[in-house]
Amino acid sequence: MRKVIITDTTLRDGSHSVFHQHTLDEMKSIAKALEDAGVDIIELGHGDGLTGSSINYGFGLHNDFEYIEAVASVLTKAKLAVLLIPGIGTIEHLEKAKELGAEVIRVATHVTEADVSEQHIKAAKEMGLFTVGFLMMAHMADKETILQEAKKMESYGADVVYMTDSSGAMLPDEVYENIKYLKENLNVPIGHHSHNNLGMAVANSLSAYKAGADYIDGSLIGLGAGAGNCPTEMLVAVLDKQGIENNVDLYKIIDAGDDVLKPIIVNKGRELPRFNSDSLMVGYAGVYSSFMLHAKNASERFKVDTRDILVELGRKKAVGGQEDWIIEVAHNLANKDKIMQPTK
Amino acid sequence: MRKVIITDTTLRDGSHSVFHQHTLDEMKSIAKALEDAGVDIIELGHGDGLTGSSINYGFGLHNDFEYIEAVASVLTKAKLAVLLIPGIGTIEHLEKAKELGAEVIRVATHVTEADVSEQHIKAAKEMGLFTVGFLMMAHMADKETILQEAKKMESYGADVVYMTDSSGAMLPDEVYENIKYLKENLNVPIGHHSHNNLGMAVANSLSAYKAGADYIDGSLIGLGAGAGNCPTEMLVAVLDKQGIENNVDLYKIIDAGDDVLKPIIVNKGRELPRFNSDSLMVGYAGVYSSFMLHAKNASERFKVDTRDILVELGRKKAVGGQEDWIIEVAHNLANKDKIMQPTK
Repeated sequence: MRKVIITDTTLRDGSHSVFHQHTLDEMKSIAKALEDAGVDIIELGHGDGLTGSSINYGFGLHNDFEYIEAVASVLTKAKLAVLLIPGIGTIEHLEKAKELGAEVIRVATHVTEADVSEQHIKAAKEMGLFTVGFLMMAHMADKETILQEAKKMESYGADVVYMTDSSGAMLPDEVYENIKYLKENLNVPIGHHSHNNLGMAVANSLSAYKAGADYIDGSLIGLGAGAGNCPTEMLVAVLDKQGIENNVDLYKIIDAGDDVLKPIIVNKGRELPRFNSDSLMVGYAGVYSSFMLHAKNASERFKVDTRDILVELGRKKAVGGQEDWIIEVAHNLANKDKIMQPTK
Repeated sequence: MRKVIITDTTLRDGSHSVFHQHTLDEMKSIAKALEDAGVDIIELGHGDGLTGSSINYGFGLHNDFEYIEAVASVLTKAKLAVLLIPGIGTIEHLEKAKELGAEVIRVATHVTEADVSEQHIKAAKEMGLFTVGFLMMAHMADKETILQEAKKMESYGADVVYMTDSSGAMLPDEVYENIKYLKENLNVPIGHHSHNNLGMAVANSLSAYKAGADYIDGSLIGLGAGAGNCPTEMLVAVLDKQGIENNVDLYKIIDAGDDVLKPIIVNKGRELPRFNSDSLMVGYAGVYSSFMLHAKNASERFKVDTRDILVELGRKKAVGGQEDWIIEVAHNLANKDKIMQPTK
C-alpha cells in the first residue's frame, strides 16, 4: 500500500501545552528522538507559528530562530518545518528561517482565506522551500469551498495542501468525503491534520489516508492543547496494523514519547493531553479554543450556559478576531431566555 | 434516525480504575447522576462481573449485592444491569441479584465460547430478566465465527447480542463489516462495547451504529483500565452532532462526569483514563491487558522486549488462563534472537 509521510508537530502545536517554554536542549533531544524513530518532517516553533512569540500569543522561552538553529544542528535526515500564519510571520522571517535550517514551510490560513497565502507561498517556492498550504478550521466549509481554496494554494505553487481540523470537530465520513473530493480534483498531494476533541483524531487520520491523503500529522503522546492532536505513536500503530507503509519505527516512537517527552512535560508540571468538557465542547460546537475564556466570562456576566454560547458561535461560524461577538451572542441568549420564560 | 440505547458501564468496567473501591454512597451518587442525564441502562458491580470480588480478581470495598441494593434504592427510571461471567458468577448469584433490584443481565463469554452461556442465559430469561449475550475479545474471530457464536446466544434466548472489543484492538471498518453481517443474519438487536487502546472507541461506536447496532456502551470520562472505554459524554456529543436520537442529555452527562465522578476519582488518588504505551500495545497486539504484568516479568527474565512478547501472544490468539504460555513465548523469542544474532 502507498506510503504515508508523517509530520510530527509535537514541537509546534504541542508547544501550546507547555506555553512555549521548551529549553533549546529539550527541543533538540525531542527532535533527535523523533528523527531516530523515522519521522519524515519535524515541525517546531511557537504554537501560533513563526514569530508567534509576542505579547498577543505568549512569549516563548526562546524565539523561533534560536529554536530552528538549535534543532537544525542535530538533524541529519528529517526535514525541519516551520508554520507561518500570514499577518503574524512575514517573508523576511521566512528567509531567516531558511537561512538557519528550515526546509519545509507550512503557510496557514483560515479555510476560506487562502488568498492571503499567495505572497508567502510564492516567496517560499522561490526560496526553494518545500511548501505546504495549510487550510485551518476546515469543518466550517463545504467540500466545494475547501477545494476552491485548495486550488488557490496549488496555483500559488504549494507542493502539498492540507485540510486541517483545527477544532477537532470533524467525523470520519466527512473527512473521507472531503479528502476524496480534493484528491480527485487537485494535482498536488493532500494532507490531514487532526485534533482529538471528539475522540476522532486517529480515526479521521485513517479515513484521510483511505480517501487518498499522503501526508498525515501527529504529535507524540498527542501533545497539544486540550484533547491534543493525533498521537503519532497511535497513528503509527494503526498504520502498521493495517499494513500501511510509513517510515516510522513503532517501538522507537513509543520510546520517544515515554523516555524523552513525558519526563520533560512532567518536569515542567504540565498535564499530559486528555479530553475534558471544555475541549469536548470546542469540538462539538466547532469553535476556536481561544473562545473558551471569553465565553466563560460572558457566561458569568449574562448568566447563560457557556456551552450555549459556544454552540451559537459555532452555528454562526464565528472566526478568530471576532471575540467581541461573544458578548453579543451571550446578551441575545440571555434575552431569549427572558422572552421564553417570562415568569422566571 | 433510529434511536440508540445507551448502557453506561462506569460503575462496572470503570470499577477496575478504582480497584473496585467505591463506597455505597459514591455508587449511588454516580448512578443517580447517570439516570438524571437519561442513561438507559446502568451497569454496576465488580469489574470482573457478579461476585468477581475475590482473592483472584481483587476484593471490592463492598460485595456486588450490597452495591445492587444500594443503587436500586435510588433509581426510578434507568434499568440496573449486572455482568456475569459463567464460572465466576452462578445462577444462584443471578437470582439474588434480581431479588435486590437487577433488571438486566449481561452474560459474558470469550467470543468463541458462547456455549458456556447457555445455562445462564436460559435461567436469566426464565427469571424474566432482560438478557444480553456479551461476546468478548471479538477481534480474535472472523465475522462468520462471531455470527455463529451470536446465533447460539440468540437461540438460548438472549434479547440482545453484543460484539465486544475488549482489547480496543478493532478498527472502524472492521466493526462496520462485522456488525453489518450480524445485523443481516440475526433477529435480535446488536450491541457494541469498545475500548480506546487504539484511540478508536468513539469512531468504532459510530461505525457500529451505522452498521445497524442499536445498543452502545460508554463510561463517564471513559473511566476504565488503561486507555479506558468509549467516553459516554463524547459518544452523546457525536450522536447529537449527527442527529442520531438517544435519551441522554449532553450537558447533564458532561456535568455528571465533571461534578460527580471526577471529584470521586481524584479524591481516591486515582488517575483519569489516558492511553499509555502499555494500553497502546495491548490494542496493537490484541491481547488481554492482564497479560502485561506477566509479559513484563518474562521480559526481564529472558531479556526480550515486552512488546515482542505481546505481539507474538496476539498472533497466537492467546486467551485468558494461558498465562503460562507467556514464559514459553518469551523463551522462544530469546532463543530466536540468539540464532539470529550469534555474536551477541
